[in-house]
Amino acid sequence: MIYLDNAATSFYRPKTVAEAVAEAINTMGNCSRGTYETALTSARTVYETRDLLSGLFHGDGPEQVTFTANSTESLNIAIKGVLDPGDRVVTTALEHNSVLRPLYEMERQGVDLVVVGCTGEMDRGGRSEKERHKGALDYDALKAAITPGTKAVVCTHASNLTGNLVDIRRIGGWCREAGALFLVDASQTAGVFSIDMERDNIDILCFTGHKGLMGPQGTGGICVRKGIRVRPLLSGGSGIMTYSKTHPASMPTALEAGTLNAHGLAGLRAALLYIREQGDGTIRDRELALMRRFHDQVSAIPGVCIYGDFEQQERAAIVALNLGDEDSGEVSDYLAQEHGIYTRSGGHCAPLMHEALGTREQGAVRFSFSHFNTAEEVDLAAAALRAY
Amino acid sequence: MIYLDNAATSFYRPKTVAEAVAEAINTMGNCSRGTYETALTSARTVYETRDLLSGLFHGDGPEQVTFTANSTESLNIAIKGVLDPGDRVVTTALEHNSVLRPLYEMERQGVDLVVVGCTGEMDRGGRSEKERHKGALDYDALKAAITPGTKAVVCTHASNLTGNLVDIRRIGGWCREAGALFLVDASQTAGVFSIDMERDNIDILCFTGHKGLMGPQGTGGICVRKGIRVRPLLSGGSGIMTYSKTHPASMPTALEAGTLNAHGLAGLRAALLYIREQGDGTIRDRELALMRRFHDQVSAIPGVCIYGDFEQQERAAIVALNLGDEDSGEVSDYLAQEHGIYTRSGGHCAPLMHEALGTREQGAVRFSFSHFNTAEEVDLAAAALRAY
Repeated sequence: MIYLDNAATSFYRPKTVAEAVAEAINTMGNCSRGTYETALTSARTVYETRDLLSGLFHGDGPEQVTFTANSTESLNIAIKGVLDPGDRVVTTALEHNSVLRPLYEMERQGVDLVVVGCTGEMDRGGRSEKERHKGALDYDALKAAITPGTKAVVCTHASNLTGNLVDIRRIGGWCREAGALFLVDASQTAGVFSIDMERDNIDILCFTGHKGLMGPQGTGGICVRKGIRVRPLLSGGSGIMTYSKTHPASMPTALEAGTLNAHGLAGLRAALLYIREQGDGTIRDRELALMRRFHDQVSAIPGVCIYGDFEQQERAAIVALNLGDEDSGEVSDYLAQEHGIYTRSGGHCAPLMHEALGTREQGAVRFSFSHFNTAEEVDLAAAALRAY
Repeated sequence: MIYLDNAATSFYRPKTVAEAVAEAINTMGNCSRGTYETALTSARTVYETRDLLSGLFHGDGPEQVTFTANSTESLNIAIKGVLDPGDRVVTTALEHNSVLRPLYEMERQGVDLVVVGCTGEMDRGGRSEKERHKGALDYDALKAAITPGTKAVVCTHASNLTGNLVDIRRIGGWCREAGALFLVDASQTAGVFSIDMERDNIDILCFTGHKGLMGPQGTGGICVRKGIRVRPLLSGGSGIMTYSKTHPASMPTALEAGTLNAHGLAGLRAALLYIREQGDGTIRDRELALMRRFHDQVSAIPGVCIYGDFEQQERAAIVALNLGDEDSGEVSDYLAQEHGIYTRSGGHCAPLMHEALGTREQGAVRFSFSHFNTAEEVDLAAAALRAY
């Protein structure tokens, strides 16, 4: 089995992750709901996980890191928690439905939603197919869209379909100038690429634990800059201020209701320690090398159409492609059934990106790499594709 | 260490739970996001877990079981998803803040909220302290409150503070007569006590995975009767209908957005299989026997005040008490530090129950039992309390 669907969920993880979760299940109580030893162990683990994440993302401290079940919950809380009817919000065609659908919901409630497209899109007739297949964000249009008075810009750090990285530092600068909040969806990049909330001027960072961070499913979170108020979606038990009719407003409790998934967070903590041990850029460089190796080989396949901007020095370790007019699902099934190579096909929850690439009907076959993958696996996958 | 805080989170679990989660973390892909083997294993596990839960609760089939991170998320989705401004909703003083705070939120949005109290509350002067300390739900008042036109009744199956069981079958009958939706919070009972959505006329059942069901933290869910529409709180990636601007309306996807915690659900599945193996009532009877054994011993301690209705044949395996005027936190700390006995003290996120019992300031020391606890542990705990 060759697993190349790491952009959907990590399959290879440091072995300490499963061990930490199993140990937590067998030894941990309910964090911050008791003062005895097992509850305190749980609370310490959760706190340390917050602290590691705040360090990783250069956030405003552990108390500004709140936990959710995944990026989708994080993005729903962030988007619905800062926008009000009448607000102007800017987003991009690169977004996943976990950004788009909450924004469409807010649009139906009176938010003014502006979606910025890709460079090849605006003049399909005039520009080459090649430009269009790059799926490159139109930075000029984005800059123009971030007008003074814009409430927020919501933007992914990398397309989950093409792997194109977005220059969040540049966009963060425009947000600062316009006085707009900057919300970043780091689903495809957290744990692999450098994210610095201060340098990149990010106000709210949404991440999931089970992709590049290599933690278990059921973990994710939101890092919020101090002073930014996010209305909670959930209220309930908080372990503190029992007699208040409203959920506590102080972070991190404000955005967390009910018992935390401390068992899963113990695994995320183990993964974060592993990532820290690897040192800056090691995982990224290995992923990029595997991705380039694959790209170089499959580029030579007759009739292949590769999506994304490979002139980018840094990009998520994703290669999305089609073989002529072949249905992407059929190619993906062939790879799985004939070669035990696991990829993803179809729409990838990225409708506007497919519109931009012109692959709405065909979808795309997505190969996404982990630093645990090997060069041999990459070569076998390229050979299998060649043999289709 | 003697763990008697099982009402907060299970500590003792079948060993298969941690094993199943660890195995899932090391072998599972992203459920319903791929067609290859590891993704299908994940999807099958999730489906089987839905099926086991629907069977356990006599629900309307696996597709009517949706997963959340915990009861609090379930209750927020259920309460905010069925109530509209102007609706009348009835609840009780037994509720946890995970019910009360979402209801207070809806009240601020124009919902007419009616809270039914306990029998000893209405005439504090006239009735005995003993009656008041029972914390018994006032069924006459509840029946009267469920008027025709009431949109919903939201009610716990057992108080997390006193352990009093609520006769949901009776209340379900009143809801049927009045045409009101019946939402039940099964946080303290799922996995231990009989819940039959059909017999009890329950429309929406909210549960958590990490208490009586003995699954991992980060698991929980909602069972919805067919035909009941619950507005989702979250929207986003659904793996299906990528090009729709709205989140799919079909169950179970309607109430699930983003990657499910299939790792945790693998553990919940293992716990459900264990519960099924134990046979009907075995776990419950063992818990009740431990609780009665403890109750009989501590009742004899001079100055002890025990809360809850112990005339109930069936009640959650909880004994909440105070020793004279001693602060509940001090007693709980003494038990932990001097005897390694882990209990909970303070407010227990049940503000109205404390008001009803008259323990707002003092809180209460709560002992809650698992069928994995032993008679010897119970005796040691009672002896430790006696020695305070």
